[in-house]
Amino acid sequence: MYKIVLMRHGESTWNLDNRFTGWTDVDLTEKGCAEAAQAGKLLREAGFTFDLAYTSVLKRAIRTLWLTLDEMDLMWIPIQHDWRLNERHYGALQGMNKAETAAQYGDEQVLVWRRSYDTPPNPLSADDPRASYQDPRYAGLARQQIPLTECLKDTVERVMPAWDDTIAPAIRAGKQILISAHGNSLRALIKSLDGISDSDIVGLNVPNGQPLVYELDADLKPIRSYYLGDAAAIAAAQQAVASQGKSR
Amino acid sequence: MYKIVLMRHGESTWNLDNRFTGWTDVDLTEKGCAEAAQAGKLLREAGFTFDLAYTSVLKRAIRTLWLTLDEMDLMWIPIQHDWRLNERHYGALQGMNKAETAAQYGDEQVLVWRRSYDTPPNPLSADDPRASYQDPRYAGLARQQIPLTECLKDTVERVMPAWDDTIAPAIRAGKQILISAHGNSLRALIKSLDGISDSDIVGLNVPNGQPLVYELDADLKPIRSYYLGDAAAIAAAQQAVASQGKSR
Repeated sequence: MYKIVLMRHGESTWNLDNRFTGWTDVDLTEKGCAEAAQAGKLLREAGFTFDLAYTSVLKRAIRTLWLTLDEMDLMWIPIQHDWRLNERHYGALQGMNKAETAAQYGDEQVLVWRRSYDTPPNPLSADDPRASYQDPRYAGLARQQIPLTECLKDTVERVMPAWDDTIAPAIRAGKQILISAHGNSLRALIKSLDGISDSDIVGLNVPNGQPLVYELDADLKPIRSYYLGDAAAIAAAQQAVASQGKSR
Repeated sequence: MYKIVLMRHGESTWNLDNRFTGWTDVDLTEKGCAEAAQAGKLLREAGFTFDLAYTSVLKRAIRTLWLTLDEMDLMWIPIQHDWRLNERHYGALQGMNKAETAAQYGDEQVLVWRRSYDTPPNPLSADDPRASYQDPRYAGLARQQIPLTECLKDTVERVMPAWDDTIAPAIRAGKQILISAHGNSLRALIKSLDGISDSDIVGLNVPNGQPLVYELDADLKPIRSYYLGDAAAIAAAQQAVASQGKSR
């Protein structure tokens, strides 16, 4: 049996501002830092340890990982940064306040953009300063690998090769792994692990900074999964995510 | 031409206590954290950027690197942890206050242990709780690779394969690299780069938290090297290192 831990980054400055973030490289809030340290404490107290960690190339996930590993006295383990674990790209909505967007387009359109499986928001134009073509962290990628918008389906299609090619082989090799990532890159993994339908996955909310443990069988099929933290705190954190993007 | 940056970690709690640290995994002081952030600021303002960083498996070097990369907005670059970049192992002296050791054995004996090229301090016994055999970060090593004491010559002999096998090839491949390490693992690199003799290398002091730039030719021979910071601050930091281990 294998055991892995998934974790969404702690609260970011744009979670707090209720802005669409996507590939924008915003940092954690103080609360987000505290959530990450608390996650490390929970993991340590529950006897977890890790040999290897995966994260995105976005600092809110990296800092969450650093703070968690620091708390666990595991700063020395290898960390693999993979752009494929980045948050879903939010296209032209990146940087917009969710409540304002909802007020302009209506809750329903925003909900479609956020929660439809295969409807992407309008793309950034290629010369938009928010496009990632000039960003050195993507310098090794072909231009067509760098999205200008994504629906969740697109995110799933880039996340799963990271799982298949690098993460799953490491688990099978006996590595104890921690993945620090984002709401939608984690949805992609959870969809695949738990076999969740296209329509159901959009209603699943991953709370910030809560370690989600998966126990996997020899075929990497889940035996069970559970959040480590206090149930009430997790329910509250999930509710907080669910209400983002509403105008009220 | 290639350009690389070497950096000794910021002040650690045992630098402050004037204790022999070696492989003991002590953390940075607040001053040490500030030094690391300041190094990142200097590097950023001087237009440096990096594709790849090397560090040891000891948290004072890792945290120095993290704080430097954070300041440079480079948290996303790959970091390779290599135990061969660890500080020199100080054997039975690890944990002892340098001034007390000097008062007991005399400045001269301590200076021999600290600064002779090939005289190691007494080794730890294999069952000493300070020995690293049970430490998970060394679990992949053969028992005989894990030292119980080292002279500087021993440190040179383990550091240089890391340079030859992994660091030098990365430089030749065009990677812009930063190495965050320790007083004696950096002495090993500097000895080799600058062709310093066994007797002269022991008098060379690497200050804490000061970026040391090497410009290298196509054969990785130094064209020139210089500290980035303010000359007076560097001289003071070198003097501070030189006076460690004196009883007064």
